[in-house]
Amino acid sequence: MSGNTFGVLFTVTSFGESHGPAIGCVVDGCPPGMALTEADIQTELDRRKPGTSRHVTQRREPDTVEILSGVYEGRTTGTPIALLIRNTDQRSKDYGNIADTFRPGHADYTYWHKYGIRDPRGGGRSSARETAVRVAAGAIAKKWLKEQFGILIRGHMTQIGEIAIPFTAWEHVSANPFFAADLAVVPQLEAYMDSVRKSLDSVGARLRVVAEGVPVGWGEPVFDRLDADIAHAMMGINAVKGVEIGAGFGCVTQRGSEHGDELTPEGFASNHAGGILGGLSTGQDIEVTIAIKPTSSIAQPRRSINKAGEPVDMETHGRHDPCVGIRATPIAEAMLALVLIDHALRHRAQCGDVRVDTPRIPARRTAG
Amino acid sequence: MSGNTFGVLFTVTSFGESHGPAIGCVVDGCPPGMALTEADIQTELDRRKPGTSRHVTQRREPDTVEILSGVYEGRTTGTPIALLIRNTDQRSKDYGNIADTFRPGHADYTYWHKYGIRDPRGGGRSSARETAVRVAAGAIAKKWLKEQFGILIRGHMTQIGEIAIPFTAWEHVSANPFFAADLAVVPQLEAYMDSVRKSLDSVGARLRVVAEGVPVGWGEPVFDRLDADIAHAMMGINAVKGVEIGAGFGCVTQRGSEHGDELTPEGFASNHAGGILGGLSTGQDIEVTIAIKPTSSIAQPRRSINKAGEPVDMETHGRHDPCVGIRATPIAEAMLALVLIDHALRHRAQCGDVRVDTPRIPARRTAG
Amino acid sequence: MSGNTFGVLFTVTSFGESHGPAIGCVVDGCPPGMALTEADIQTELDRRKPGTSRHVTQRREPDTVEILSGVYEGRTTGTPIALLIRNTDQRSKDYGNIADTFRPGHADYTYWHKYGIRDPRGGGRSSARETAVRVAAGAIAKKWLKEQFGILIRGHMTQIGEIAIPFTAWEHVSANPFFAADLAVVPQLEAYMDSVRKSLDSVGARLRVVAEGVPVGWGEPVFDRLDADIAHAMMGINAVKGVEIGAGFGCVTQRGSEHGDELTPEGFASNHAGGILGGLSTGQDIEVTIAIKPTSSIAQPRRSINKAGEPVDMETHGRHDPCVGIRATPIAEAMLALVLIDHALRHRAQCGDVRVDTPRIPARRTAG
Amino acid sequence: MSGNTFGVLFTVTSFGESHGPAIGCVVDGCPPGMALTEADIQTELDRRKPGTSRHVTQRREPDTVEILSGVYEGRTTGTPIALLIRNTDQRSKDYGNIADTFRPGHADYTYWHKYGIRDPRGGGRSSARETAVRVAAGAIAKKWLKEQFGILIRGHMTQIGEIAIPFTAWEHVSANPFFAADLAVVPQLEAYMDSVRKSLDSVGARLRVVAEGVPVGWGEPVFDRLDADIAHAMMGINAVKGVEIGAGFGCVTQRGSEHGDELTPEGFASNHAGGILGGLSTGQDIEVTIAIKPTSSIAQPRRSINKAGEPVDMETHGRHDPCVGIRATPIAEAMLALVLIDHALRHRAQCGDVRVDTPRIPARRTAG
Repeated sequence: MSGNTFGVLFTVTSFGESHGPAIGCVVDGCPPGMALTEADIQTELDRRKPGTSRHVTQRREPDTVEILSGVYEGRTTGTPIALLIRNTDQRSKDYGNIADTFRPGHADYTYWHKYGIRDPRGGGRSSARETAVRVAAGAIAKKWLKEQFGILIRGHMTQIGEIAIPFTAWEHVSANPFFAADLAVVPQLEAYMDSVRKSLDSVGARLRVVAEGVPVGWGEPVFDRLDADIAHAMMGINAVKGVEIGAGFGCVTQRGSEHGDELTPEGFASNHAGGILGGLSTGQDIEVTIAIKPTSSIAQPRRSINKAGEPVDMETHGRHDPCVGIRATPIAEAMLALVLIDHALRHRAQCGDVRVDTPRIPARRTAG
Repeated sequence: MSGNTFGVLFTVTSFGESHGPAIGCVVDGCPPGMALTEADIQTELDRRKPGTSRHVTQRREPDTVEILSGVYEGRTTGTPIALLIRNTDQRSKDYGNIADTFRPGHADYTYWHKYGIRDPRGGGRSSARETAVRVAAGAIAKKWLKEQFGILIRGHMTQIGEIAIPFTAWEHVSANPFFAADLAVVPQLEAYMDSVRKSLDSVGARLRVVAEGVPVGWGEPVFDRLDADIAHAMMGINAVKGVEIGAGFGCVTQRGSEHGDELTPEGFASNHAGGILGGLSTGQDIEVTIAIKPTSSIAQPRRSINKAGEPVDMETHGRHDPCVGIRATPIAEAMLALVLIDHALRHRAQCGDVRVDTPRIPARRTAG
Repeated sequence: MSGNTFGVLFTVTSFGESHGPAIGCVVDGCPPGMALTEADIQTELDRRKPGTSRHVTQRREPDTVEILSGVYEGRTTGTPIALLIRNTDQRSKDYGNIADTFRPGHADYTYWHKYGIRDPRGGGRSSARETAVRVAAGAIAKKWLKEQFGILIRGHMTQIGEIAIPFTAWEHVSANPFFAADLAVVPQLEAYMDSVRKSLDSVGARLRVVAEGVPVGWGEPVFDRLDADIAHAMMGINAVKGVEIGAGFGCVTQRGSEHGDELTPEGFASNHAGGILGGLSTGQDIEVTIAIKPTSSIAQPRRSINKAGEPVDMETHGRHDPCVGIRATPIAEAMLALVLIDHALRHRAQCGDVRVDTPRIPARRTAG
Repeated sequence: MSGNTFGVLFTVTSFGESHGPAIGCVVDGCPPGMALTEADIQTELDRRKPGTSRHVTQRREPDTVEILSGVYEGRTTGTPIALLIRNTDQRSKDYGNIADTFRPGHADYTYWHKYGIRDPRGGGRSSARETAVRVAAGAIAKKWLKEQFGILIRGHMTQIGEIAIPFTAWEHVSANPFFAADLAVVPQLEAYMDSVRKSLDSVGARLRVVAEGVPVGWGEPVFDRLDADIAHAMMGINAVKGVEIGAGFGCVTQRGSEHGDELTPEGFASNHAGGILGGLSTGQDIEVTIAIKPTSSIAQPRRSINKAGEPVDMETHGRHDPCVGIRATPIAEAMLALVLIDHALRHRAQCGDVRVDTPRIPARRTAG
């Protein structure tokens, strides 16, 4: 209950520091009998891997995953699946100068006060390096959801700094380093990111994750609603400051006659709900949007204090993403997958295979 | 784990349907020795109570709370505190006509598919009536946080439909039925709400909750960050579609040089973080904003289907809030209090009374 | 997590003090659609009810249960089921003299040191009166297990003080006040209990609970084995000091060639395992035995101390069971039912309906 | 919630199979600032290690532990501590012949039915090899309990098969391979074990664990009593069939006037309660006794069936302990330590540092 375990029935217990020997996790509760290899996980890890373009951190980590348990002859056995990723590009020296000071926008100050001790190497446990573990665990969840229910979970960037990114087609997303669903905007993004980097600054971002094919009725009222657990998962990603479901903050100025999605024999007439009503999935696309703050580590001087409470000036050099949002897409997908598999199992536990006579009305897809 | 328990160490297990005999909860984990009477709880319940102005539902519920256990001679004993609120104004007949149809924007369709059975009386368990229980439990949390740490948790509406509501002073909030922190805007709001009601429609809202006085270091990385748990709590309130911490979605267009709050010996120079860094409280004000969708029950005809999948037209008459956001302020305060007390206990469990030499820098208040 | 919730997926959150206004619980996670009335629960409560013979406490409590939620038109809805039992025969005056002293064998001393405050009326929360709540919740579990799987859970006394009670037939159990499965021994028990009472003393007891019809494979290795969770449940009953599964302590002097139950195409050849191997049910009868200490409240003087640490002599008069074990049979049955339903749901969550080709070998019944 | 995590606040999440690449665990919730090295853990692992005498399995495993996270410059940081033990002496061929049959007394049959798939190599997850992980995690718990409270947790064998082992002195325990607290009995035990081995059979055992120095008031009524959680922990150890606290099954024939420990200004006059009243620690020694069944793997033919349900004869050759109870002492100590640290943190969470005026009466030691 110290916060390093995610989920109720499909649980991920994460460990590891940015510059310690390794990061990893134990995945417990995975249904038995699913085919699983390290390659299934590696594919997803490679999407988040650092050093893949000049727009992200240049730390060189192959992020090679090893399965230590829970798989026998290529199939999950129902026992815990331990995943191990050795750190290979630790550079303790990059971080030596910050052991006694608190970087603005970082967790240095809060960890120090919470624990009375802090691993300063690259932010230690608070580093976004830990999110590789989530992507690895999420890969298992994604695979099961796809095989069992045909659920597809995909994300894309919708805005980087001031640049809004239109949705053109899912296929574009993997064909550029920005997870943009529109290749035409990529040159503009490259120029923009280059200018940000040159100005020794960083920018925020917004991204969208969609789950298609979720059955009706997943989620647990009243506190562990599907949207509540999604919000928990998303706000728990490093640097996220806002979460929206469906219409999100746009609902403030909507009227009830507009927002409330009408039902027809052919399906819902719209999806302002974002696929969730009363905390339960409606069978429509689940629509999530998140806001990610600009990277806190920037190479221009900022005011801070040291452990003695004295003022200091800090410039954070090193190998930092100028926009942490860019690599967040696979992380957000992974977290959505983890929420969904957990609720799939929770639903099955209490309700088994409830079948009602009412035809489940067809899901109407959200544009994009 | 069916979602009706909130919290890890200070837990609230909620029960009850809108038109059943009673609603209530069991609060477990409350520290012993705190003075507590029914009046302490009733005060908060009265702030949320229906029927207090023409702008909210006219259902007449006194919401009288009875403490069934856990208090001896006016003090908490450390054993479970059961709270009971009898329903007195059930009107099953109001809802008889909707047993076989699914109201747009409501949980009727999803509950039916999840459970294969549904209590249609006023939405049953999915009704916002259940939130009275949260306010009652939150009153206990608020009292303890105030007595132990001087923490003050307050909320106010910042927007109703198109009408933005400025912040003038906390004192205004209790002096008008809209929880507006600016009395000057009240006549405009009254006219606006009257027009909404006359148009047989409803509107959304936005509100803000602030916690002052939270010590540094509450929250549990990496999954149960304080902001993640706040997001879970807020998105779990009926009708909420978006949650922001600090700068929220505004961070997307911020630069790192602007967003990252600098530290000075006199305190943080700003509070874009909303009082949370790395998932842990910074000692500054915790700033939360939420978006609430327009009431789904409106008196104009809407398309839906019945259990047979046939199209029907629905008008929802009855006693509904034209803007459910209005009465959400005490609920959001209660949920924030429940998150904070839970993390207070979780922090104490692992870290006891950690004391570091660094002076805790003074909190700088956010405007308003 | 303050210990008042039992179970993971089928949870019982208990509240109430012996002489407070009420006791009760919230049952969460009950599968939807099961027929349930207050009569179903009352039947079990009446088996445990005080005052039914001269051999148990003379407190007059009808233990009438009210269902406050979670049931609609006679069927469970999948939402929390709150159960309320009002206390009607509180006698605060019986207990006034013990507010400042610690009764030997009771929780007075430990509660006082734990919480710094104590409800002294009849032991407050530590009274066995709370177990009525477990019997009520267990009635729901029993009903579901029987309807879904044909599982039968029954218990009987095997020893009271020095008197061993043979097993003759289950039918005898309900026909005498001692839950003895042999009517012939009843006169001897009556005389024995009368002599114990006259000597102002009390005695211990041993009882056995059996679950027939449990499918193969329930239980969660490695920590939440079915036997581990049964041990937790049983040792959590007031006054229990020992728990055995199958051969129990008898296994110490067994050889492996005797203890290990052989498998044959017709079934297991014996059941020393007590129906559990590797923490998972084998399909054979689950066999549990527990030891219950003699009642601590006796009417002869005993040495103790008061809050000032001074020596005092205490005689506990009042309405106490001379053998608390007698009424423990329905409690132990209830707890076993609560463990089994929880594991039924946990198994279904992860494994769904696993079907292997191997024929499940027939269960061989234990004698009795 | 698939049963591989132990504890609520100090949690151990275990993974690994007997003949997979590694076993290990993640320890979460450890208080920050404690000195910890791999040597602290290795010491305990070496006490349980196989191959140390001819009376235990001859599998050669160094059981070398690696700390992967959670420790910085020799001190715990409050973040998860991952422990890794590579398996080095896997012999898949030893187990090839049992992939299609079910060994009597083992979990083969139940795992197969639960999961529909089974790792047959050495019992896979159900092997007692997993208990090394518990000993490793328990070493951390033991260290903290000793440093913070002076708590001492020790165990010794009290019976092997028919041979009762008297208690002479704790010092004897580490000076013989049987964890006997009496060196005089060792030659008899050696001869006895040799004869058991020659008869191609195995025997059961009984052992006792004691915790000295536990403060008054740990434990959480009503379900998570300290004794209930100890029973859960002990019954969750492979092969355990019975658990007793204090007088245990001996209480059945005790009178209340004998069993109920009187209080005097100098302390409790006896300790039949085994250090726990009302589920809370009394400050006296916590006394636990467990029964361990004879090893199921024996080299004489036993009847079983194969996956097709056909009868087969099985002899289990390989490297098995003739009495699994012998190496269980450090495991039982570890589990008791894990229960106690968890309740230490749970108590601190809710009650902080409760101080009552009553002098805590001195603990009176149990003989031995």
